[in-house]
Amino acid sequence: MRNFEYWNPTRLFFGRGETDRVGQECRKYGERVLLAYGGGSIKKTGLYDRIVRRLQEAGCSVTELSGIQPNPRLSKVREGVEICRREKVEVVLAVGGGSVIDTAKIVAAGVCYDGDPWDFFTGKSVPERKLPLGTVLTLAATGSEMNRNAVITNDETQEKLVVKNPVLFPDFSILDPENTFTVPKDHTVYGIVDMMAHVFEQYFHPVPETPLQDRLAESIMKTIIEYTPRVLENPKDYDARATIMWCGTLALNHLIEAGLTGDWATHRMELELSGVYDIPHGAGLAILFPQWMEYVLPLIPKKFAQFAERVWDIPRGNRSDEDLGKAGIERTRQWFREIGAPTRLREVGIGEERLEEMAERVAKRGPIGSVKVLTKEDILTIYRRSL
Amino acid sequence: MRNFEYWNPTRLFFGRGETDRVGQECRKYGERVLLAYGGGSIKKTGLYDRIVRRLQEAGCSVTELSGIQPNPRLSKVREGVEICRREKVEVVLAVGGGSVIDTAKIVAAGVCYDGDPWDFFTGKSVPERKLPLGTVLTLAATGSEMNRNAVITNDETQEKLVVKNPVLFPDFSILDPENTFTVPKDHTVYGIVDMMAHVFEQYFHPVPETPLQDRLAESIMKTIIEYTPRVLENPKDYDARATIMWCGTLALNHLIEAGLTGDWATHRMELELSGVYDIPHGAGLAILFPQWMEYVLPLIPKKFAQFAERVWDIPRGNRSDEDLGKAGIERTRQWFREIGAPTRLREVGIGEERLEEMAERVAKRGPIGSVKVLTKEDILTIYRRSL
Repeated sequence: MRNFEYWNPTRLFFGRGETDRVGQECRKYGERVLLAYGGGSIKKTGLYDRIVRRLQEAGCSVTELSGIQPNPRLSKVREGVEICRREKVEVVLAVGGGSVIDTAKIVAAGVCYDGDPWDFFTGKSVPERKLPLGTVLTLAATGSEMNRNAVITNDETQEKLVVKNPVLFPDFSILDPENTFTVPKDHTVYGIVDMMAHVFEQYFHPVPETPLQDRLAESIMKTIIEYTPRVLENPKDYDARATIMWCGTLALNHLIEAGLTGDWATHRMELELSGVYDIPHGAGLAILFPQWMEYVLPLIPKKFAQFAERVWDIPRGNRSDEDLGKAGIERTRQWFREIGAPTRLREVGIGEERLEEMAERVAKRGPIGSVKVLTKEDILTIYRRSL
Repeated sequence: MRNFEYWNPTRLFFGRGETDRVGQECRKYGERVLLAYGGGSIKKTGLYDRIVRRLQEAGCSVTELSGIQPNPRLSKVREGVEICRREKVEVVLAVGGGSVIDTAKIVAAGVCYDGDPWDFFTGKSVPERKLPLGTVLTLAATGSEMNRNAVITNDETQEKLVVKNPVLFPDFSILDPENTFTVPKDHTVYGIVDMMAHVFEQYFHPVPETPLQDRLAESIMKTIIEYTPRVLENPKDYDARATIMWCGTLALNHLIEAGLTGDWATHRMELELSGVYDIPHGAGLAILFPQWMEYVLPLIPKKFAQFAERVWDIPRGNRSDEDLGKAGIERTRQWFREIGAPTRLREVGIGEERLEEMAERVAKRGPIGSVKVLTKEDILTIYRRSL
């Protein structure tokens, strides 16, 4: 196990009806609220009205930043920062999934910074403060509701980059599983792939002796596998939605990575894909992950064998670690297919054309991977095998 | 799953050498430090000198509260509060295990309260603020380093009570596994029983559909079982000590209880025992827990069967849930014996004499248990079966 620092100050309110706290919680931090949301589905479901009403009852005034898209854009962040300055916003409230929350994080930090918020992503600057930030989660996926990460796409350069900083922890997050009842099947699936992929990134790593971390990660994976059929069959199954939501939060709140160094190469390769092609992040991950797994299997065969046995309950028989691991990877790919995720680039309309350019760009951005540091050639091979 | 609020602001520094941060971390909160510790073992090991040196290098002045005993006393808390007031202490630093940390928590809160600190335990008052508090953990056991609980014994009345309040979270905790290398075998074992018991309290409960919580709890239990032989065989096995330490923290930092209501009846029965007889808390728990398990087995047989299968790898065969659960309980008792914990009251010198008086007192203090609310008769039966 490696040394680590762990700190997570986000306050969670989890469960049915917790949405109604939103007014009182925001009001603790200020009066003038920026309400950030996406394409308007929260208007159809009534969530928008409910939240605005609660904010008003608590004495808050509301300004809006709407139309935040999946693979959220830097231009939207800049728009949000401007609104906050103009309206003297005191609290940012994100209502949505990872894209909305990530945008809100960088808006909240951007307001407190003199330069351009893209500086946080290029390393030119580091966020030092942010406006108070609350979230109401409507999609179980990214874990952004309880972590210090944000991913933004620069619409001018198509670069999709991540920034990680303790300043970016939300102050509070409301996790009301009923707010995910109306998420359509495809987005439910992409969210599930995303959380599963987060666990993969932190489970397959080169650090010896992380037995508790392994088992915690396996717990999340097994629970996701067990409960996914239930949310797909009955989107209003409260306990199933609640379980998947809690899995998504714990999959990326820094708990299971304590004491180890996750890999994250597959995420870096995927961010490039969805930055350039605007495909759903979860789709890209389902396509790339099994390929990456097969590529690095010979380096950590024991871990893949453990994965096959403990997560997929595949009996060892008289197989070698590598053969058993291979069976686990194949089972993973099959599971992605079963739940309706793509496993080939061609399925999402991506061909050979820009793979080399993308591989080059990913490799250039510095060392990628902890199980194996991938070169441009490695990345290109994985992209090509994913076609 | 039930609704829950989750918040844990304690900052952890985990790993080899992290002890040397103690000066700089304390100095962030103030200059005048109260150094709270136990019977002096930290002087023998050199930890005392190392910490005092680091504090002085960071520009801190040090006042001491020493001689804190296991089953820590209210009189010591009062002494600490007086010292803090007299010396205008700005930061409390606990160096020790749960007893020292719990004492430091109530000292830190007591300084900010006009009345007697025992009021927090009787319900007469609630802690509203505390002095900044850091800890350097030297015994993996209670989880107090990352939770909002404190247990104190009133030496006048022999009452041993718990208070739970978010004010009591330490601001930071240094978890350096090397600081547990010198813990003697018996205390290592009692600490392990304590953390295992914490998981039991939160694993056996009546709330349906807590699949992720179940698996997280099982992860901690399986890891404890797997690594206990290693710390007992080689007390300086770093990875084993680190793993056990991390298990102890996660066993009681509010994570695995999110969404459910733990039982805690066994802890309440044990606090009475160790309050009256001054036996090690871990010894009392090892004696009482299997008895409590057998007593409530018929109420949640499925959960006990799951425990037997998943935690102890006992094959079901064609056994009923109850029979399988019984095998799991018997295996638990056997494990306590294997690692050197007592499983009978008589082994720690306790007889029939005061059992009735204690049962009455435990029952009087209000409803006890969530799997089954125990009456005085239930408690007395469990005590007697433990003789």
